[in-house]
Amino acid sequence: MRYFTEFAYNGTNFHGSQRQPNGITVQEVLEDAFSTVMRQQVALTLAGRTDAGVHAEQMFAHFDLEEQETRNKDNNPTGMVQRLNSLLPPAIAVRNIFPVPEDAHARFSAIERTYEYRITTVKDPFRQNLVTQVATGLDFDAMNKAAQVLLGKHDFASFCKVHTDVKTTFCTITRAEWKDNAVFHISADRFLRNMVRAVVGTLFEVGRGKMTIDDFRQVIEAHNRSAAGQSAPPQGLYLTRICYPFEIPITGDCTLQE
Amino acid sequence: MRYFTEFAYNGTNFHGSQRQPNGITVQEVLEDAFSTVMRQQVALTLAGRTDAGVHAEQMFAHFDLEEQETRNKDNNPTGMVQRLNSLLPPAIAVRNIFPVPEDAHARFSAIERTYEYRITTVKDPFRQNLVTQVATGLDFDAMNKAAQVLLGKHDFASFCKVHTDVKTTFCTITRAEWKDNAVFHISADRFLRNMVRAVVGTLFEVGRGKMTIDDFRQVIEAHNRSAAGQSAPPQGLYLTRICYPFEIPITGDCTLQE
Repeated sequence: MRYFTEFAYNGTNFHGSQRQPNGITVQEVLEDAFSTVMRQQVALTLAGRTDAGVHAEQMFAHFDLEEQETRNKDNNPTGMVQRLNSLLPPAIAVRNIFPVPEDAHARFSAIERTYEYRITTVKDPFRQNLVTQVATGLDFDAMNKAAQVLLGKHDFASFCKVHTDVKTTFCTITRAEWKDNAVFHISADRFLRNMVRAVVGTLFEVGRGKMTIDDFRQVIEAHNRSAAGQSAPPQGLYLTRICYPFEIPITGDCTLQE
Repeated sequence: MRYFTEFAYNGTNFHGSQRQPNGITVQEVLEDAFSTVMRQQVALTLAGRTDAGVHAEQMFAHFDLEEQETRNKDNNPTGMVQRLNSLLPPAIAVRNIFPVPEDAHARFSAIERTYEYRITTVKDPFRQNLVTQVATGLDFDAMNKAAQVLLGKHDFASFCKVHTDVKTTFCTITRAEWKDNAVFHISADRFLRNMVRAVVGTLFEVGRGKMTIDDFRQVIEAHNRSAAGQSAPPQGLYLTRICYPFEIPITGDCTLQE
């Protein structure tokens, strides 16, 4: 039987989301806790990969359990979520566990992902590693005009980490805008590795007056990572929403895009 | 010449605000940074003392500088604040430095202090050590009715850490209420050691139905710490505002009480 789990994490002390040999990852810590609570080896398939220091307010993963195991007397989802959260470190919170169709896939079934990049101009002792501090004076009007150039289906190779093995560097961006001079919202059907941080770093160049909106358009058209600006630091980046074409039993305004 | 400095800190990794031999404190770290930037030994007198793990969104301290020193070419307050913040760890942010009358005293001139105690019923990976997690089901109506009993001038010995050397345990509380089922606001002319955490811990007893509002009144009237409930944990507690009877050059709604 296939299940989805929804969870959130503070990425500060993890070597990213995806299991890897060189450091503790979100996947590894979650799989250990799930395996303990479910009393069987649980393998999670995450909806996406986030880099070291990047956070997720909403992430999904799928996993499979033997049917008889899920009918254990204490296997009600609420109880499982509570036991998982007691077992997990403070940096990871499981929000929900629910059954899905057998062919539902956390990564491949997702139809839209949203990231936010959060900045501040003021030193904030309460958001250490949770926001990127930038100098005052960024031109948000210019950054928003440049952001509009991103909308639609384009080849975003210029914002893709080099030496990444992907079939295609085309993505369809459905939202890209700065709100309240503090948060950049970006939604797409898919994202390339390092893409949001490269986009934000290049928008900072526009905001600082070092790049025009025409320059920004040429960066996209170059299809070459070296044309874009430096990646913005990871700590301001949050995966905030993933949409699926089937019902997800959570609160929120996850409406499907046309 | 006497100056005030306004600052904020995340108390998680400090052994409280006040200098002491057994651990790193906010005062010690600040005095080191101020002494470096001012190029002379600076001694800070803080407006109040917060325990280990308690935070401050607004704290003040006063210090004295030789007049000629303050006229150094690069001693403009904005420049000093920036240099202090680069030198200080991420957990402390200096907001302002400004001259005050010679008899202004950060602690004794303060006429009102406000604390907030912040709770959540949901595991929050982004506010580790910044909020206290409590079980659902607290009766906030009952807690607010009990909180009203606190208003006015009373002997609050029941909420004062024992073996504390104070001249009087009388305080005048001008505000005490829970807002949005999440934050307790309390304002008074002065607070005793451990007072807010003892008040909140005892209000939790009321919220859990283990103590009536009459019981709560009797706790106050007992003038005995053992009558009250356990102290609530430090991480939910924030000093948020201090009012002085003279002009403080900051934003905010620090209106004087009659």
